[in-house]
Amino acid sequence: MSLLVVGSVALDSLETPFGKAERIVGGSGTYISLAASYFTKKINLVGVIGGDFPQSDLDLMQKKGINLEGLQVKKDQKSFFWSGKYHSDMNTRDTLVTELNVLGDFDPKIPENYQGCEYLMLGNLAPVVQKQVIERLETRPKYIAMDTMNFWMDSALEDLKEVLKMVDILIVNDSEARQLTNEYSLVKAAQEITKMGPSTLIIKKGEHGALLFSENQVFFAPALPLEEVFDPTGAGDTFAGGFIGFLARNKDFSFETMKNAVIYGSAMASFCVEKFGTEKLKELTANDIEERINQFVELVKFNKVIV
Amino acid sequence: MSLLVVGSVALDSLETPFGKAERIVGGSGTYISLAASYFTKKINLVGVIGGDFPQSDLDLMQKKGINLEGLQVKKDQKSFFWSGKYHSDMNTRDTLVTELNVLGDFDPKIPENYQGCEYLMLGNLAPVVQKQVIERLETRPKYIAMDTMNFWMDSALEDLKEVLKMVDILIVNDSEARQLTNEYSLVKAAQEITKMGPSTLIIKKGEHGALLFSENQVFFAPALPLEEVFDPTGAGDTFAGGFIGFLARNKDFSFETMKNAVIYGSAMASFCVEKFGTEKLKELTANDIEERINQFVELVKFNKVIV
Repeated sequence: MSLLVVGSVALDSLETPFGKAERIVGGSGTYISLAASYFTKKINLVGVIGGDFPQSDLDLMQKKGINLEGLQVKKDQKSFFWSGKYHSDMNTRDTLVTELNVLGDFDPKIPENYQGCEYLMLGNLAPVVQKQVIERLETRPKYIAMDTMNFWMDSALEDLKEVLKMVDILIVNDSEARQLTNEYSLVKAAQEITKMGPSTLIIKKGEHGALLFSENQVFFAPALPLEEVFDPTGAGDTFAGGFIGFLARNKDFSFETMKNAVIYGSAMASFCVEKFGTEKLKELTANDIEERINQFVELVKFNKVIV
Repeated sequence: MSLLVVGSVALDSLETPFGKAERIVGGSGTYISLAASYFTKKINLVGVIGGDFPQSDLDLMQKKGINLEGLQVKKDQKSFFWSGKYHSDMNTRDTLVTELNVLGDFDPKIPENYQGCEYLMLGNLAPVVQKQVIERLETRPKYIAMDTMNFWMDSALEDLKEVLKMVDILIVNDSEARQLTNEYSLVKAAQEITKMGPSTLIIKKGEHGALLFSENQVFFAPALPLEEVFDPTGAGDTFAGGFIGFLARNKDFSFETMKNAVIYGSAMASFCVEKFGTEKLKELTANDIEERINQFVELVKFNKVIV
């Protein structure tokens, strides 16, 4: 019943209208694992870091039940580093620095202990690496979900299409869904993407919520209208972590359970943006999460007035 | 129990990626009245047209139960004319031509028959005209709703603020709410706007749905994910017409009923964009509307899985 998470484990320097943070812990693998850890305790992480990655954050991840046996440490190298500055609307950002460092020649090794995982979440990484991970698993997981980004559509589209054929669930944002299909209508984009491989598609729309397409059905989860968005970094990965963590906990991938998983993912993302980096994801309680879920339920609930 | 609608009754020339339409019927008063006519038959329209406005459309409006006694006809002048071209994403457009014509010196006259109306919907017009209408009513309607646009925030902000003090419900889009308050967060913008007068605020987000703020509560209505948007012209006015028509029919402005009204408004807007201009709004049945409402219900419905 374990969940295998593969993704970047990184250091980020961020600037938002609310402040700056230097070399804090980030990366898709980190956000996914932390968010999922609130739902399932059998999380096996695969990734790579350098000697500059803070031990205190590794300790915290282990305390949250995240197995780091598959996290390679290259002591004399540096961790993947990204630096970005958000515009005042918080929806757009400029990348200032990207240093691949240890991620440049990342060779994902799957510890023997990790074999037999039931669920695999491929965080945003080069499609060739995502494919390697799938190929190195002795038995195919029951469900494989993946994230990707426009960068790979520009630079490695054929590789990306290869991986898409191998997965069950794709999680992308609206502009990525449009770029991948050349369709502006998200309904049409969803139809095209499900022809590429994944039977389930989630389109994240940031502050505008998320759409779930599966089994010829569609579900819409709103985003919570927030007074302040402090730092959007990692919100998409946190969504993915909450989503897959919830499904792994429930061991059920029916449409009805996936609807719930999208709401839980949205709730986790709404926490993520309230503080810098992973800060908020370190301190949540089960009660915090349930209270937020109730806010989502209230936000869209209405009793039909008979006319 | 009558609903008074004030707005432009216009001719539009439109170009979208799907085609062109020349000098077809449009205007905020037209779209609002037509949408509301599916819910209440006591609609009194105030507006002004020139001799170039097609009689067949006037006949149709009357057939839909819209009283045109307050629609001034200036036979030797031209109707308000707007021409626009939509970009390929359908969310942005260029205004090519705006000819005020009869609207330039519009003096809204309220027929004696219209006095005593319970509900007033002020479509997008110069704030001074909106104010005149309120002042010319012998008794204040129970509920006054208004629409406006960024043009008046740029050119007549003080007038607009005067009208805002006199109304109960403001309906604007997200960029207008942000412009009016200088707040990017829609939650903060809503707090500021309710200090300006209206106790209820609806923020339309186009393809991303609509938010209802009232009585310190918030409700979110999604937009239906559509395969094609044929022509977005009038969608916002159609939303307003469905919203106020539903409330007038139910004679109830509680938060629960307003939630329903937002869903009905969204449903009417989703029809509007499926054909050019008012075309789709002429041919709907009660059954069409109920079926679409059910699609909205299904879109956000989920049964909470116990974890």
